[in-house]
Amino acid sequence: MVLQKKDKIINDPIYGFITLDEGIITDLIEHPYFQRLRRISQLGLSYLVYPGAHHSRFNHAIGCLHLMTKAIYQLRKKGHTITNKEEEALKIAILLHDIGHGPFSHALENSIVRGISHEKLSSIFMHRLNKIFKGKLNLAIKIFNNNHPKKFLHQLVSSQLDMDRLDYLKRDSFFSGVTEGNIGTERIINMLDVVDDNLVVEEKGIYSIEKFLIARRLMYWQVYLHKTVISAENMLIKVLQRAKELIMQGDDIFTTPSLEILLKNNFTIIDFEKNINLLNYFSQLDDYNIYTCLRYWENHTDFVLSRLSKRLINRKILKITVKSQSITDKEKNELITKFMKKHNCTHEQANFFIFSNKVSNSTYNIKEANINILMKKGEIIDITSASDQFSIDNLHKTVNKYFLCYPNNL
Amino acid sequence: MVLQKKDKIINDPIYGFITLDEGIITDLIEHPYFQRLRRISQLGLSYLVYPGAHHSRFNHAIGCLHLMTKAIYQLRKKGHTITNKEEEALKIAILLHDIGHGPFSHALENSIVRGISHEKLSSIFMHRLNKIFKGKLNLAIKIFNNNHPKKFLHQLVSSQLDMDRLDYLKRDSFFSGVTEGNIGTERIINMLDVVDDNLVVEEKGIYSIEKFLIARRLMYWQVYLHKTVISAENMLIKVLQRAKELIMQGDDIFTTPSLEILLKNNFTIIDFEKNINLLNYFSQLDDYNIYTCLRYWENHTDFVLSRLSKRLINRKILKITVKSQSITDKEKNELITKFMKKHNCTHEQANFFIFSNKVSNSTYNIKEANINILMKKGEIIDITSASDQFSIDNLHKTVNKYFLCYPNNL
Amino acid sequence: MVLQKKDKIINDPIYGFITLDEGIITDLIEHPYFQRLRRISQLGLSYLVYPGAHHSRFNHAIGCLHLMTKAIYQLRKKGHTITNKEEEALKIAILLHDIGHGPFSHALENSIVRGISHEKLSSIFMHRLNKIFKGKLNLAIKIFNNNHPKKFLHQLVSSQLDMDRLDYLKRDSFFSGVTEGNIGTERIINMLDVVDDNLVVEEKGIYSIEKFLIARRLMYWQVYLHKTVISAENMLIKVLQRAKELIMQGDDIFTTPSLEILLKNNFTIIDFEKNINLLNYFSQLDDYNIYTCLRYWENHTDFVLSRLSKRLINRKILKITVKSQSITDKEKNELITKFMKKHNCTHEQANFFIFSNKVSNSTYNIKEANINILMKKGEIIDITSASDQFSIDNLHKTVNKYFLCYPNNL
Amino acid sequence: MVLQKKDKIINDPIYGFITLDEGIITDLIEHPYFQRLRRISQLGLSYLVYPGAHHSRFNHAIGCLHLMTKAIYQLRKKGHTITNKEEEALKIAILLHDIGHGPFSHALENSIVRGISHEKLSSIFMHRLNKIFKGKLNLAIKIFNNNHPKKFLHQLVSSQLDMDRLDYLKRDSFFSGVTEGNIGTERIINMLDVVDDNLVVEEKGIYSIEKFLIARRLMYWQVYLHKTVISAENMLIKVLQRAKELIMQGDDIFTTPSLEILLKNNFTIIDFEKNINLLNYFSQLDDYNIYTCLRYWENHTDFVLSRLSKRLINRKILKITVKSQSITDKEKNELITKFMKKHNCTHEQANFFIFSNKVSNSTYNIKEANINILMKKGEIIDITSASDQFSIDNLHKTVNKYFLCYPNNL
Repeated sequence: MVLQKKDKIINDPIYGFITLDEGIITDLIEHPYFQRLRRISQLGLSYLVYPGAHHSRFNHAIGCLHLMTKAIYQLRKKGHTITNKEEEALKIAILLHDIGHGPFSHALENSIVRGISHEKLSSIFMHRLNKIFKGKLNLAIKIFNNNHPKKFLHQLVSSQLDMDRLDYLKRDSFFSGVTEGNIGTERIINMLDVVDDNLVVEEKGIYSIEKFLIARRLMYWQVYLHKTVISAENMLIKVLQRAKELIMQGDDIFTTPSLEILLKNNFTIIDFEKNINLLNYFSQLDDYNIYTCLRYWENHTDFVLSRLSKRLINRKILKITVKSQSITDKEKNELITKFMKKHNCTHEQANFFIFSNKVSNSTYNIKEANINILMKKGEIIDITSASDQFSIDNLHKTVNKYFLCYPNNL
Repeated sequence: MVLQKKDKIINDPIYGFITLDEGIITDLIEHPYFQRLRRISQLGLSYLVYPGAHHSRFNHAIGCLHLMTKAIYQLRKKGHTITNKEEEALKIAILLHDIGHGPFSHALENSIVRGISHEKLSSIFMHRLNKIFKGKLNLAIKIFNNNHPKKFLHQLVSSQLDMDRLDYLKRDSFFSGVTEGNIGTERIINMLDVVDDNLVVEEKGIYSIEKFLIARRLMYWQVYLHKTVISAENMLIKVLQRAKELIMQGDDIFTTPSLEILLKNNFTIIDFEKNINLLNYFSQLDDYNIYTCLRYWENHTDFVLSRLSKRLINRKILKITVKSQSITDKEKNELITKFMKKHNCTHEQANFFIFSNKVSNSTYNIKEANINILMKKGEIIDITSASDQFSIDNLHKTVNKYFLCYPNNL
Repeated sequence: MVLQKKDKIINDPIYGFITLDEGIITDLIEHPYFQRLRRISQLGLSYLVYPGAHHSRFNHAIGCLHLMTKAIYQLRKKGHTITNKEEEALKIAILLHDIGHGPFSHALENSIVRGISHEKLSSIFMHRLNKIFKGKLNLAIKIFNNNHPKKFLHQLVSSQLDMDRLDYLKRDSFFSGVTEGNIGTERIINMLDVVDDNLVVEEKGIYSIEKFLIARRLMYWQVYLHKTVISAENMLIKVLQRAKELIMQGDDIFTTPSLEILLKNNFTIIDFEKNINLLNYFSQLDDYNIYTCLRYWENHTDFVLSRLSKRLINRKILKITVKSQSITDKEKNELITKFMKKHNCTHEQANFFIFSNKVSNSTYNIKEANINILMKKGEIIDITSASDQFSIDNLHKTVNKYFLCYPNNL
Repeated sequence: MVLQKKDKIINDPIYGFITLDEGIITDLIEHPYFQRLRRISQLGLSYLVYPGAHHSRFNHAIGCLHLMTKAIYQLRKKGHTITNKEEEALKIAILLHDIGHGPFSHALENSIVRGISHEKLSSIFMHRLNKIFKGKLNLAIKIFNNNHPKKFLHQLVSSQLDMDRLDYLKRDSFFSGVTEGNIGTERIINMLDVVDDNLVVEEKGIYSIEKFLIARRLMYWQVYLHKTVISAENMLIKVLQRAKELIMQGDDIFTTPSLEILLKNNFTIIDFEKNINLLNYFSQLDDYNIYTCLRYWENHTDFVLSRLSKRLINRKILKITVKSQSITDKEKNELITKFMKKHNCTHEQANFFIFSNKVSNSTYNIKEANINILMKKGEIIDITSASDQFSIDNLHKTVNKYFLCYPNNL
C-alpha cells in the first residue's frame, strides 16, 4: 500500500493500521536503501527453529515508527515540547536506525564487513540520504548521534527503553510464537515522562519494567541465542570465511558482484564514508544474495565450502553443546581428531566443522543509559533501586554461555 | 451448552473448545453447588478498576479442568503412570478446588464465615458431594488432601505450579486487559515432568518459570492488590461488619435468610461438618445476594450502613494512600477527628470510613512446595538456584504495603 | 481507574487503553445511572451457554465511546467538519444510547415495563441527566433523536453501521469465544466517509461490509438467539409474569421495593416522563435484584413460581425444539396434557412450562437507514447493489424460527 | 526444533505447539525437497502490500498437518474408522500436497514450467519420495489421487473444506493482518462428520460455513488478488518471459544453472516423470534464486529486462486500473503509443510495460466437490440449499475483474 500516493496506510498484524506521513517519511520508505530491508530477516536464521519468524527488518522499522508516533503524542500530552521539526526528525531517526544491517541482520555482522558495526553503517546511510534529500535529515542525524541539546529525544531512539526495543520484543515474540516474550508496549509508553531532560517511567510502571526486563532476557536465551540458532549462524559465518579465503587465494568461486568486492577487500569505515559506490555495493546485499551463493557453493569442489553450504540449505545444523564453563581444548581436540580421521582432512578444515565460542547477555546493562523511575514523591531512582525484587548485582551480571559445535555423526 | 446431553463442549474465549467427560464430571458441573460459581466474581471487586474482569469462578474452574487434561496427557507421554481412576480423580479435585469460595471470592473470606478458609469449605463441599454421588469422589478427596501415595498428583492440584495458578494468571490477565500478566501456560505444561514422585520442570523451562513468577508478582500488585480494589474490598468488609453488629444488637435490617443465619452466628468448622443445612445456606450466598442487600441498606437509617452501601453501589470508593511504612496513629487520628467533626459522629462510626491495614505478597513462598528444576545432568534444584537471575533472598522476601483509607472530601 | 481524578484511562481487553475526556464525559460515567450498567449483563442469559460472556453494558458503552473517538478523527481527517461541541455531543449520545436497558438487557424488555422500549427509556434518562447537568446534553439529545441538521452525526449513533453495532459484534464475539463473529471494526471506520450529509463506505470496503453482515447474522443465530438462551430468557419472562400475577392478586411474595412498584402498576411512557421517582425506581433494578428474587421465589409455595425459579438458578433449562414452521397446537397440547397429568396441575399452570413462540432476524433491514457505498466514480449505491454476492431479496428476508419449550422429563 | 531428535515440537504463532510424529513424518520434513518450502513465500509478492505476509509454504504445510491431526481425532470420536495406516497416509498427503509449488507460489505457476500445474508436480515429488522412502507413501499417494476406496479421506486432503483451505485462510489472515479473513477452523473441524463416505458438516455449522465462504471471498479480493499484488506478480511473469526470450536467442544473461535449464527448454509432464535430474533442478528453485537474478538483470543492457527488474527490486510497481468490463484496445494502444514515443522503443518492448488481462474468482465453485450439510433430520443437502442467505446463482457466479497495467509517468 505504501506506493499508492493517496493511501499511506500499512496494515500491520500487530498494531493494525499504521498511517505514514506523506513527504520525507514516505520518500525515505520508497527509497531502494530502505526497500532492501524487506529482504533482510529480522532474526537472522531464527526461522530455522521458529518457522513463523520470517518477518523482515522492514516490518520492524515501520513498527518503530508507529511506536514513536505514540510516544510523541503521550509526551506532548504531559506538557513536554516536541516541535514539528523534532517530530519529523524523531520519526526519520527511528525509521533508519537499523538501515545499516547487512544480510541476516546480526548473524553476519562483522563477517562481510569487519570492524564496522551496523550502527556506524546506519549513520553513513543517513548521511548519504541526507545528501539525496538535500539536508532534510540534518536534525534526525543530530538526534541519532546525541548531538541535539534535548537529550531525551535521543533516548527515544536509543536507550534501554527506546522504541526499537519496545517494538522488537513485541514483534519477535509475535512472529516466533514465543508468547511469553510479549511486553506491555502500550502501557510502558503511556507511563513515559521527562524529568530534567531525561526519559523516565512513572513509579506505577515498575512492574511493567520488571516484566519487560525478564521478557527481554527470556527472548535472548529462548529465541535470539537459542542453541540451534547459534549453531546455524556460526555455520553461516564459517562458510563466508571460507569463501573469503578461497577468493583471496584466487579460486574460481561464484559470488554476486557486490559480495565479491566486499569479500576481496578489507574496507575500513573511512572507505565507506568516502566511497559512495561502496555503500551502494553494500546496499545490494541481502539474505537472497547470500542464499543463492550457498546454492552454487554446495556444488563447489572445496570440501569445506560445499559441505557447509549443503548443510545450511538443507537444515542439517551442526550439533551444539552449551555449558556454563569454557569448552576445554581436550573436548574439542578429540572431536577434531575423529573428524580428521573420518574425512581424511586437515586440522584447518576440521576447524570449520568443530568450533567453540561463547555468547553473552546481561539483563540490564549499566553501560547503557539507566532506566529511571520517577517516584510519586518526585525523586528519580534507578529501576534496580526502585524494584524490591531485582538485585542490582544479578541484573548487571553478564551471563556467558560456552558452546561447542560438531557434526552429529562422529 | 453444558446441559445438552449429547454436546459436552464449552466454548472458552481463552482455550477455545473445552470437552467435558460425560459422567461424574458433567454431573458435578450440573450440580447447584457448582452452578453457584457462575455468580461469584473470580476477582471480587477488581472489575471496578478493570471493567472487563467480570469473569466468574465457574469460568476458572472449567479452565483448570482443561489444563489438567493437558497436563495428564503430557505426563503420560513422558512415561508416567496415571490410571484412569486417577485421571478422573484429578479432574474432580481441580474442578472443585475452589468450590468453597464465598461471595466476591477472596474479598469476603473471613468476613461472613470467620476463621474458616475457602480451602476448608471446599473440602467440606467435596465430602458432601461424595455422599451425594455415592463415594465417587473418594480418590479425588484423597489427592486434594495429599493423602494419596502418589504425591505428584496432589502437586498438580495444589503447589506453586498447579493448574489453578496456571489458569488464573492467564485468565485474569485476559479479562482484565493487563496483557503483561499472560504466561506461557502451554509451554510450562509441556515441560512438566516427574522425578522421585515430585513434579519438576525441565531445565530449558527456567526462563518461562522466571517469567511466570514475575507475571504473578505483576498481577498481584497491578490487579489483585490494586489500591482502588483494596479500598473497595475493605469497604465491603466494613459494611458487612456493620450489618453483623446491627443484627446482633437486634436492629431491623434486611438480609437474605441464609446471610442472616451466617451473620447471626459464629459457626466453627465443626458446625459446617456436622450440619448439612449450614452448608446449604452457605451455598445460597453469592455476589447477587450481597449486592441486593447493599441496595436495601443504602436506605437504612444507620449512618454507617447506609453511607458505605451507597458508596459501593455508586463506586464512590474511599481514597487510599499506600506506603511502605506503617501508617502512624497520628495520620489516622487527624482524619478521624476531622470526620467526626464534619459528620458529628462517634469515633467508632468514623472507624468505618477511616482505617488502615496492610497487604502482603511474596513472589515465591518457601513455605509452599518448591519449584523444582530438572537439570540436563539429572540433578533437581530449586528455581532460585537454577536461575542466575533471581536471588533467593529477594524472591522469598514478603513485600508489605501499608494503606490508609479515608473519604476524599475531608 | 475511572474515579482517580488525574487518571482518566480505562483498560479494555479489546482495545487496550481508552482515554476518557475530563468534564461532562467522566461526570456522566460516574453518575449512579451509568454505574448501574456495570450490573447489567450485556447479553442477558447468554452466559449460561457461553460462560465467558459475563461482560456488562458498562463495558460496551465505554467501547462505543472509544470507537466514536476514532470515527470522529477519521472523518475530520477526510475534511468533514465536526465541531468540538458536536464531538462532545456525539460522545455523550453514544455513551448513553443504551442507558435505558433494564435487567438482563433485551431479555426482560417489555416484561418489567411493558410497551416502553429501551430506546425510549434511554431518551428519558438523557433528559433527566440534562437537567442534572444543566443543559450540557442539549446537543447530544438532538443528535440522538435526529433533530440536528447534520444527519450523518445521528448515523454515527444509530444506523446500520453505527458505533453501537461495530462495538457489540466485536465485543460479544470476544467474550463469548465465538471468534467468527469478530469484525474489522478498525478497517470499517477507516473507510467511512460522508457524502451529501450521509455516512457512506468507500468502495474498497465492500468485502468488509459483506463480512460484517454475515458475522452479524452468525452472532444472531449462534449467540443472541442460541436455542438454549431463548429457552432460558423465556423462562425468565415467564417467572416474572407469574410474580406479577401473584402480586396483583395480593399474594405475599418477596420483591425489592422498586421491582414491586413496577410490577404492581402498568406505567406508560408519560408516567416515566412526568415522575422522576419512577425513573429512579427503574434505575435501581439490575440483574442482581432479579436474581435475588429468584432465590426467594424458589422456596415460595406457588407451584409455578418456585419451580421456574429453582430451574433458572440451577440452570435446569427447559428443553427447546426449533423449527422453520409454526408449532402446531397439537404438538403443544399433547405435552401440556402430559404435564397436567404428571403434576396434577391446571392448564394455566402448564402454560408456564410448555410454550411456543418465534424469533426473527433479518441480515439487513431495509426499514433502517441503508448501508451506502461510495463507488470510485462517485456514485452512491446501496450495498445490495454494490456487492456482486448478495441478492437484495435474501438479505432483506426476515428469517423466522419457531420454538417450543418443555420440560425434558415428560 | 525439528532436528533435535528428542524434541519433535514446532512452535506455531497460530496454533501454539505442534507435535510431529517421529518416523516418516519427520523424515519427510527433514528432506531437502521439503526444507525448500522454507524459501518459498506462501503468498507470492503479497508482502509488497501486506508487509507481515512473509510466511512460507513450510509454515502452511505444518499447519495443515496440525489440522489433519485434529480432524482425524474428531472423526474417530464420532465413530468413523480411520486406521493407523490411513492416519499416517493422510498426514503425509496433506504435508506434501503443495510440495510442487515453484518460486513465489502461484505467481510463477505456468511461467517457469509451462502447462504443468503445481498439483501435478506435487504428485511427481510424492512418487519420487516414495521411491526414496521405499514405498512408505503408497497409501498417501492413493488418497491424494482419490484412488483409495474411502473417499472421505481424499476430501480431507482436497475438497471445498479440506485442511489446506482451513489453514491457509486462517494463516494468511493472521500474517497479513487482514483479521476479517479469520475463520472458525476449530469450530468447523468439530462439526465435520461422514455420511455415505462423504465429508459433511452438521446443520448447526451452517453459519460458520457461510462465514467461511465470505471470508474466503474477502481474502481473494483483498489480499490474493489485491490490485498492487496483481501488478507486481504480472511484472514478475513478464520479466521471466523476457529472460526466456533472451536466453533462447542466445544472449548472455545471468541465471542460476537450474533456472537456465528450465527456461531453455519446454519440458512436458512426461519429461518430469522420466527424468529425476529435472525434478532436482526444479527443487533447487526458490524465491531467493529468482530474486538474485533480478539483481543481476537490473544492470543488463536489455531495455525491458533491466527496467522491469529494477522496478521489482525497488518496489516501483506499475500502476494498475481494474474494471468490471474488458479493457479496450483503444485504451491500451494510446498508452503504448505514448510509451513508444517517450522511450523510443518498439511495440513489442512496450508490451512488457503496458498490458491487460483478467482475474477471476468464484465464491463457491460447483465443479469442485460440494459442501454438504447434514440436517438434523438426516438429509444431506448442499450449503446453497441449506442456507437461507446465499442464492445459488450468486455463489456460483464467477466474478471477473479486468486490469490494465502501465507506468505511472506517461
